[in-house]
Amino acid sequence: MSFRLGGLSLKIVGGPGSLELASKISKSTSCPLVAVNTKRFPDGEFYFKFEEKISGEDLLIVQSLYPPQDTHLVELFLMLHTARDFKAKSINVFIPYLAYSRQDERYLDGECLSASLISELLQHLGANSLYTIDAHNQKVLDMYKIPAYTLTASGELAKYFVSRDLKDPFVVAPDDEEMALKRAETAAKTIGAEYDFFEKHRNRHTGEIVTYSKKVNARGRDAIIIDDIISTGKTSANVAKILKQQGARRVFIGVSHALLLGDALKLLAASGVDEIAGTDSVVNSYAKISVAPILARGLKKT
Amino acid sequence: MSFRLGGLSLKIVGGPGSLELASKISKSTSCPLVAVNTKRFPDGEFYFKFEEKISGEDLLIVQSLYPPQDTHLVELFLMLHTARDFKAKSINVFIPYLAYSRQDERYLDGECLSASLISELLQHLGANSLYTIDAHNQKVLDMYKIPAYTLTASGELAKYFVSRDLKDPFVVAPDDEEMALKRAETAAKTIGAEYDFFEKHRNRHTGEIVTYSKKVNARGRDAIIIDDIISTGKTSANVAKILKQQGARRVFIGVSHALLLGDALKLLAASGVDEIAGTDSVVNSYAKISVAPILARGLKKT
Repeated sequence: MSFRLGGLSLKIVGGPGSLELASKISKSTSCPLVAVNTKRFPDGEFYFKFEEKISGEDLLIVQSLYPPQDTHLVELFLMLHTARDFKAKSINVFIPYLAYSRQDERYLDGECLSASLISELLQHLGANSLYTIDAHNQKVLDMYKIPAYTLTASGELAKYFVSRDLKDPFVVAPDDEEMALKRAETAAKTIGAEYDFFEKHRNRHTGEIVTYSKKVNARGRDAIIIDDIISTGKTSANVAKILKQQGARRVFIGVSHALLLGDALKLLAASGVDEIAGTDSVVNSYAKISVAPILARGLKKT
Repeated sequence: MSFRLGGLSLKIVGGPGSLELASKISKSTSCPLVAVNTKRFPDGEFYFKFEEKISGEDLLIVQSLYPPQDTHLVELFLMLHTARDFKAKSINVFIPYLAYSRQDERYLDGECLSASLISELLQHLGANSLYTIDAHNQKVLDMYKIPAYTLTASGELAKYFVSRDLKDPFVVAPDDEEMALKRAETAAKTIGAEYDFFEKHRNRHTGEIVTYSKKVNARGRDAIIIDDIISTGKTSANVAKILKQQGARRVFIGVSHALLLGDALKLLAASGVDEIAGTDSVVNSYAKISVAPILARGLKKT
């Protein structure tokens, strides 16, 4: 495919949700940034303009969909629409945090299937390929007819904590879903540690998520929880609490998408979490790892 | 067409932006409301569910796109997507305030054409017809291949002020565009008054909008400005100021879409505006007129 990094033909377009990341990707890949102009009108409507010709170009639009999701989504739609109008040769999309991915199946009749709406509209608007970071599961990617790739930040997240003088570290998956186990395995391999997992149960009466340790021996050791999303932080907080109860020396969290909403930070601190590291898929002060080199490697492989 | 009100077959679906309005439309048209469930997840993502079967039904989805526009837009997309998934027979959409309508043409190469994105996605997601209130201009409606109707609230807005003991009233269009003149004419006819208009110029040096009176003789009379949108309020404030300088007794504003953003209210008050009346196309305390009966009449005619 012509948009392979090997061909060096990509041009990077940064969306308002990922301007800094787009600039880092440009550096990591040696692909030029396209000059664009974005603003909000006084009434709050989004405006987008390509400041240079993009007709015949292979574009990579970079726009993460962290909260406010709907705002970032409409920005992305408008960018795609404009790229297509001005006849880009191909429009490839890098969406580090792919919002609405957790609404990937219907549990009740009459429910919306939000992940499917997103995939449908991205494709309708001319996206030729999709790259994301640690997709919630394979089902979400299967909704795409265009090539859709998930890349993992787990290795980089684990590596980040090596500088913390780790003592006999081990990696923990906060649940036993396939993708979670894979991420933990990757993280563990990267730093030469073992890994284990927790099981997640939903209490039908209280509605709360309860986690049980399976075979972790945490005593005196440093634990690194590797998770894809931290939203309200309840699951990670439960896992951290149990690890500390089992005698873990320190508990670190490496998370691809650190949404950290509401009281998440308070909750995690109260549960004994020592440090949180996220990626720049979400722009906040926990974005300690950039996904730019991860994408650069991913582009080379696809 | 089967969705005509004459056939009484429509079912009304209220979106989060227009719940009360949907309920009023149900009363005005004697068409039943469809039970739905909407919520936001802790991470801010929207959830929608039909609480009853809608397969084979002719739906009228009611959702206005006032700020936050992108939020209301994604809600509408998800509702359409779900209605189509569950096989509604037809999906008719009432969008009292059609956001992004002012981005209806390109002034510079490389610019987005936002109004065209909205029309494209609504149609792609299966909308069979569109109703709106006081569309910004005809060009926006011409972007739709499905039947697209604009209904005016001008008459009702003018009528509202009759209860204010009007003295020799006249109606004013704040600019001389075709749609603005039409709205003023309708308003004037409804209350049996004359109407006039202003001209709008943009000063190339200061960037400000300057308005000049044309032939209004305002002395001692009550003026009713009839406008489609008040966003920052600058144009209306200028018009009001000039009318007061020319001796108008009172200046009222009847506006279809009272966005009233930023310092609009302060500005309008400082310009001598005596009262503002808007419609429930925008949910705020200026929504003194409901567009429900206007839609009910419009449905009968189309």
